[in-house]
Amino acid sequence: MTDPEFHLNCPLPLANHEQVLLAHGGGGRLMQQLLEQVITPAIDNATLQSRHDSAVIEVGGQRFAFTTDSFVVRPLVFNGGDIGKLAVCGTVNDLAMAGARPLFLSLGLIIEEGFAMERLQGIMRSIGSTATAAGVIIVTGDTKVVERGKGDGLYINTAGIGIIEYQQQIAPASIRAGDAIILSGDIGRHGIAIMTQRENLQFETAIASDCAPLHREVAALLNAGIEIHCLRDLTRGGLASALVELAQTAQLGIQIDEHAIAVTPPVRAACEILGLDPLHVANEGRFIAIVSQAHAAAALERLATFGTDYAPALIGQVTTADPGLVTMTSLIGATRIVDMLSGEQLPRIC
Amino acid sequence: MTDPEFHLNCPLPLANHEQVLLAHGGGGRLMQQLLEQVITPAIDNATLQSRHDSAVIEVGGQRFAFTTDSFVVRPLVFNGGDIGKLAVCGTVNDLAMAGARPLFLSLGLIIEEGFAMERLQGIMRSIGSTATAAGVIIVTGDTKVVERGKGDGLYINTAGIGIIEYQQQIAPASIRAGDAIILSGDIGRHGIAIMTQRENLQFETAIASDCAPLHREVAALLNAGIEIHCLRDLTRGGLASALVELAQTAQLGIQIDEHAIAVTPPVRAACEILGLDPLHVANEGRFIAIVSQAHAAAALERLATFGTDYAPALIGQVTTADPGLVTMTSLIGATRIVDMLSGEQLPRIC
Repeated sequence: MTDPEFHLNCPLPLANHEQVLLAHGGGGRLMQQLLEQVITPAIDNATLQSRHDSAVIEVGGQRFAFTTDSFVVRPLVFNGGDIGKLAVCGTVNDLAMAGARPLFLSLGLIIEEGFAMERLQGIMRSIGSTATAAGVIIVTGDTKVVERGKGDGLYINTAGIGIIEYQQQIAPASIRAGDAIILSGDIGRHGIAIMTQRENLQFETAIASDCAPLHREVAALLNAGIEIHCLRDLTRGGLASALVELAQTAQLGIQIDEHAIAVTPPVRAACEILGLDPLHVANEGRFIAIVSQAHAAAALERLATFGTDYAPALIGQVTTADPGLVTMTSLIGATRIVDMLSGEQLPRIC
Repeated sequence: MTDPEFHLNCPLPLANHEQVLLAHGGGGRLMQQLLEQVITPAIDNATLQSRHDSAVIEVGGQRFAFTTDSFVVRPLVFNGGDIGKLAVCGTVNDLAMAGARPLFLSLGLIIEEGFAMERLQGIMRSIGSTATAAGVIIVTGDTKVVERGKGDGLYINTAGIGIIEYQQQIAPASIRAGDAIILSGDIGRHGIAIMTQRENLQFETAIASDCAPLHREVAALLNAGIEIHCLRDLTRGGLASALVELAQTAQLGIQIDEHAIAVTPPVRAACEILGLDPLHVANEGRFIAIVSQAHAAAALERLATFGTDYAPALIGQVTTADPGLVTMTSLIGATRIVDMLSGEQLPRIC
């Protein structure tokens, strides 16, 4: 409290927040603090500490991935998807990021009294068709109803189990200096799709969420024998938060090149109008693969077969310099430090 | 629509409800309709159809139980527990009811903006200590924050994985005519604890929730070689809904004796004041075991070692008469049909 510089360099200690703020759910630095200072200390264990998208658990000599996500997106239906599609893809993707083959999902619904039965049926159909397309089975569920004004239509939780059928340790701890960082496609579509719809902004080209399951891309990399060290899907907090979290966990530096990061012209235009950095905008169908440098070209080749609008790209590498930091060579050639979002960009993006 | 008797005997078709009602979450008949007509048709599969507390899944020759529950209880802290303890016990118990040994839990938090950090810390401590006591590890989690007025402090979802280490098929489909029905203890405490607290009713003896993990009782039965056909914990909808659901799923009759069902004097008094049937009141630490008649005495003996206030009791048997119906010999010797709760007794009991 006596050193002003301390405050310039460090976020406010959590003790200064007597209440949970919206930004505590934003996927950035405040959320990291909430998790580290309030949530995990009470339930800490080695698996949680691995800071992976999924927990990797071993039972009877077989490794499984296990993960959960709650979905509170607003609006419930958006360009490119709805809360049901998001709830299936989100959990499928967290399993895929552990290199697991997604098998089973649970489905927990918290419905606000008065929610239209027809809307519920529509979202259930979306859940069903997305699960079928992704090859997962919803085997267990729970339904709760809360009074009017105690929810916002519908919140969904999904948890998922996947089987890990390879020997590699795909986890932040496996990241090595020299590794290549591959981004699977263009960034920012999901966040901008939600934001423009919520703010009722009109663009010449409608921007659709990138929401999609990613397990087939991951399976293709594994089947091709790519030496994958870590995978991370880009959700809340965007590419920046994902990279910073990995750099911090691995205690290595990450160096990326802005030139290599694809942003579609409509997303770039929307970011400029809204004053956002695409690096911080949420995605729901994009991931980074950190692979051995020797396998980078083969990995790019495999991912390119999936025909996303923007080709997957090598966007940078892992370094021993600046451990815990992400640095970026910008479009104009300058180097800057990339930080997590410190506050809240947009609540309830997923 | 032309036969008035149809309406006397059957609940209103769901098509008459254009909106979700609180009663659709009450654990009774309306909830059963919502599940059968809106929720499950979109995601149907054989595992969901088994209508078990947990899904039983098989991977690599090993059977697992997988389950989920969301918790929206109000108030968050009550006599005998809080939402955190409930969230751990509820999922541990659903796993136990498949005869599984609970291993791993996920934890999804939906926090309302403005929730006091200190309350969150208290509930996290409760989650941690309950998990430790129950021998489960919380390996993965998710935290979302919603705006003020779009939640009610805190909602929690837990999903759980347990391992099934015995050969018996513990499921509604295994129930046979002649089976004994054992109730593990007195009923109605959880619902009455919540209700009296919410209504600010004062009784001479404070009524504490029965909220507790049940997997050790189940393990004791399995280890003693009891031929268990089915297990079911008594939550929303109470003993009545559990028995009716089992009778319907097994297409057998269930005959119970009111004399044998323990209700503590304070719970009975509260039920009389509130006009409730204890059979419909929620529990969070009681279950029924449907076992072969030959093993009933041994099962009772094993359960009695757990020293609950009220001894476990043989409350009835499964019959071929009246398939799908539950009949009860009342305290005064009359026979009546026991039905599910048709509407909503108390919203947000768990």
